[in-house]
Amino acid sequence: MPSEQQQREALAFVDDQLDASLERLFALLRVPSISTDPAYADDCARAARMLSDELAELGFEARAAETPGHPIVVAHHRGAGPHVLFYGHYDVQPVDPLDLWRRDPFDPVLDARADGSKVFVARGASDDKGQLRTFIEACRAWKSAAGGLPCSVTILLEGEEESGSPSLEPFLRANEDELDAGLALICDTSMWDRDTPGITLGLRGTATGEVRIKAASRDLHSGLYGGPARNPIEVLSGILAALKDADGRVMLEGFYDGVAPVAEDVKRSWDALGFDGEAFLGEVGLSVPAGEKGYSVLEQSWARPTAEINGISGGYTGDGFKTVIPSEAFAKVSFRLVGDQDPKRVWASFERHVRDRLPADCTATFKEREGSPGIALDSGSAEMRAVRAALSAEWGTEAALLASGGSIPVVNLLRDILGLQSVMVGFALNDDNIHSPNEKYELKSFHKGIRSWVRILAALGETEAAAETREAVAAI
Amino acid sequence: MPSEQQQREALAFVDDQLDASLERLFALLRVPSISTDPAYADDCARAARMLSDELAELGFEARAAETPGHPIVVAHHRGAGPHVLFYGHYDVQPVDPLDLWRRDPFDPVLDARADGSKVFVARGASDDKGQLRTFIEACRAWKSAAGGLPCSVTILLEGEEESGSPSLEPFLRANEDELDAGLALICDTSMWDRDTPGITLGLRGTATGEVRIKAASRDLHSGLYGGPARNPIEVLSGILAALKDADGRVMLEGFYDGVAPVAEDVKRSWDALGFDGEAFLGEVGLSVPAGEKGYSVLEQSWARPTAEINGISGGYTGDGFKTVIPSEAFAKVSFRLVGDQDPKRVWASFERHVRDRLPADCTATFKEREGSPGIALDSGSAEMRAVRAALSAEWGTEAALLASGGSIPVVNLLRDILGLQSVMVGFALNDDNIHSPNEKYELKSFHKGIRSWVRILAALGETEAAAETREAVAAI
Repeated sequence: MPSEQQQREALAFVDDQLDASLERLFALLRVPSISTDPAYADDCARAARMLSDELAELGFEARAAETPGHPIVVAHHRGAGPHVLFYGHYDVQPVDPLDLWRRDPFDPVLDARADGSKVFVARGASDDKGQLRTFIEACRAWKSAAGGLPCSVTILLEGEEESGSPSLEPFLRANEDELDAGLALICDTSMWDRDTPGITLGLRGTATGEVRIKAASRDLHSGLYGGPARNPIEVLSGILAALKDADGRVMLEGFYDGVAPVAEDVKRSWDALGFDGEAFLGEVGLSVPAGEKGYSVLEQSWARPTAEINGISGGYTGDGFKTVIPSEAFAKVSFRLVGDQDPKRVWASFERHVRDRLPADCTATFKEREGSPGIALDSGSAEMRAVRAALSAEWGTEAALLASGGSIPVVNLLRDILGLQSVMVGFALNDDNIHSPNEKYELKSFHKGIRSWVRILAALGETEAAAETREAVAAI
Repeated sequence: MPSEQQQREALAFVDDQLDASLERLFALLRVPSISTDPAYADDCARAARMLSDELAELGFEARAAETPGHPIVVAHHRGAGPHVLFYGHYDVQPVDPLDLWRRDPFDPVLDARADGSKVFVARGASDDKGQLRTFIEACRAWKSAAGGLPCSVTILLEGEEESGSPSLEPFLRANEDELDAGLALICDTSMWDRDTPGITLGLRGTATGEVRIKAASRDLHSGLYGGPARNPIEVLSGILAALKDADGRVMLEGFYDGVAPVAEDVKRSWDALGFDGEAFLGEVGLSVPAGEKGYSVLEQSWARPTAEINGISGGYTGDGFKTVIPSEAFAKVSFRLVGDQDPKRVWASFERHVRDRLPADCTATFKEREGSPGIALDSGSAEMRAVRAALSAEWGTEAALLASGGSIPVVNLLRDILGLQSVMVGFALNDDNIHSPNEKYELKSFHKGIRSWVRILAALGETEAAAETREAVAAI
């Protein structure tokens, strides 16, 4: 267990060595580790090697493990306290359209803005090279200040997050014992705003797939057959229109089984955020919340399940007109899930919803995709409280308890395979342009991000329960 | 007015000269006059010239008139009786896929079938070279038997029917006076079956276009926005699902204005056809009529209006899945019209239907296409009765009064520009494979088709009213 003095020294080291930390980040940013494009496979391997070598120098037992895709960096460092597993990814999104970038996306420099803040533009600056390095630099600071780490740390850095993480699940399964830990730390999320750090506690899950309605055995001329022939686009429209009632409630049988109200402390934290739903919608040209009546915009996107039609196609959709009654039409549908909603049960209920509404002569076929349940982490656990206190201390304001309407698949994988709860803390900002041209990270995010992890590692080192959470989760 | 003796001589000429008639048809079939492919423009011109030269030799004042597209053949022959305008087209559909043809589509020979009937396979054999030549050969027979024609005849043969007839409307407008006549004859339709000739009295019209629903200003991530963001596919589905009620009735306001019940004599003729609705649907894998409750399959497709969604598209429709809420979705919609339904009013009512159902933050844009009202020709006119009697005499069975659920644009053009009612008589069979590989025409269709026109020309020559129909139509 580190002393307060050691923590002060570690924080001072962070401040003193910020330029060197930044130079190490820039070196990593210069490697175009675009995972989805095979042309950059060597760059991905190079980035993995850089990180593995650096962690070895820092005293980790480190390797860049081969996978069928890009390497996964695994590094272990024994410490005094509980065992945490840190997850990040060193691969980045493609950069096109390149002409919209203000500068070479793989040549970062530090720029000062009018208000004195500093920022650097590069692909991966925020997602996730800048973020993952906040943790590594925090470890470096602890090593320098105390000669060791306040926790046992395993670092897991994958190189395929931006291309669907195909190698991650088999790697976790194959190395379950080696990756045994008490808690996962993930640095791939955003702060609430420039001044307010946050812990992401809730993520919506998904049940997704495709439905295809077939009627006639071939496309028909709508002049000759229009009237007596069943039109599958019409059938599909009717089925999809019946997914929700006028109040935006999803009408699938049993859909809301397992949906619980938001916990009181979380709700209080949300209320305190002063979220402006109108502005959120206004940014994308909308003004009226379209979700379930009786819930705020924040609740609708963070805490309520929904049904969405993500794609639809049938008949002739090119230029001009074709008088066709197509033989089939299809839609891609997804459900966002919260609480204990079961993806398989939700999809099965959707299939029943479709079959119950099929008129004569129609058949429906389905393609169900891999789903995932929602994530609702316990804000009251000792670790969560420790992390929140550490963050609040660093930023001088209470860390917000956040949620996200999207999914972060690794959180489900860590839970399902390794039995780990995750603590999601990130220092990105919503205007970091991740996945877009001119991705940036702010120096303040980087600097205070490192300092935050210095404090979090210390705070977690003081919790005794961390080592036990694996057992607790496994028993659920 | 020709004598019965002259008609007998004309019919005998048809029988005697059938081989020569067939050879003239084969010569025309050997010309690959595919109008839609510019590579065959010279062949189209050649076909037009062949026909124009032949009609001139027959004593017509004939020319192949230049147009911005392929030539239009116009030929006039003064006769004793009323003035009829015959319409046909010398252009043909493309032939691909060529490998599905049993023989070269432009090298016809006469084949005997097991039952003794004879048939020839060629592109255009039925649609429309075989059909248009039945009329020309009938004129030839009259010229030979009586030295003249029982009616004044104008022949109009276009070369762009298979590519949308772009030159026809301006040509009709520019030559309105020259094309003045009392009645139009069109030979581009089918018999009811091998033994039963028919007159097509009804055609459905169309009101068609596109509707596009826009919501957010850009595509959204369905994880982050699913719930509060309006989904335009959902909106479009709801609007389209509301087009019909559970009984298949179209719900647009005023939609059925101008829809009258089928005339009694026509209904009797339809009942006598013994149409097998189950078999009609069964051929395309359907079994239950999907149109308005209370109407037979034949009525649903021949005499009742309908609303059809011909295409729909929105969001991601490729392989895999994309968690998108698109900013827009669109559908192509058509209404088949009968009686006095007005295409413009129907489309306007559809636009209101959409606008009335638009939720907040959505806009709808429309692309209305050129529509056409339905056609309901008068079965009780003197000309119609004369044609029906002539057909019935030739085939030894009462000619059926038919309709079609589709449109034949030239019928509308002749009515709207020249003020002409049309009599649609054709000798094609439903299994002639028009627009498909191995298009064929049966020798019986060709032979008795010529004989039918011999009789029809005589019968029309006996009607006095024919010359007056133009005035009557123009006064409507």
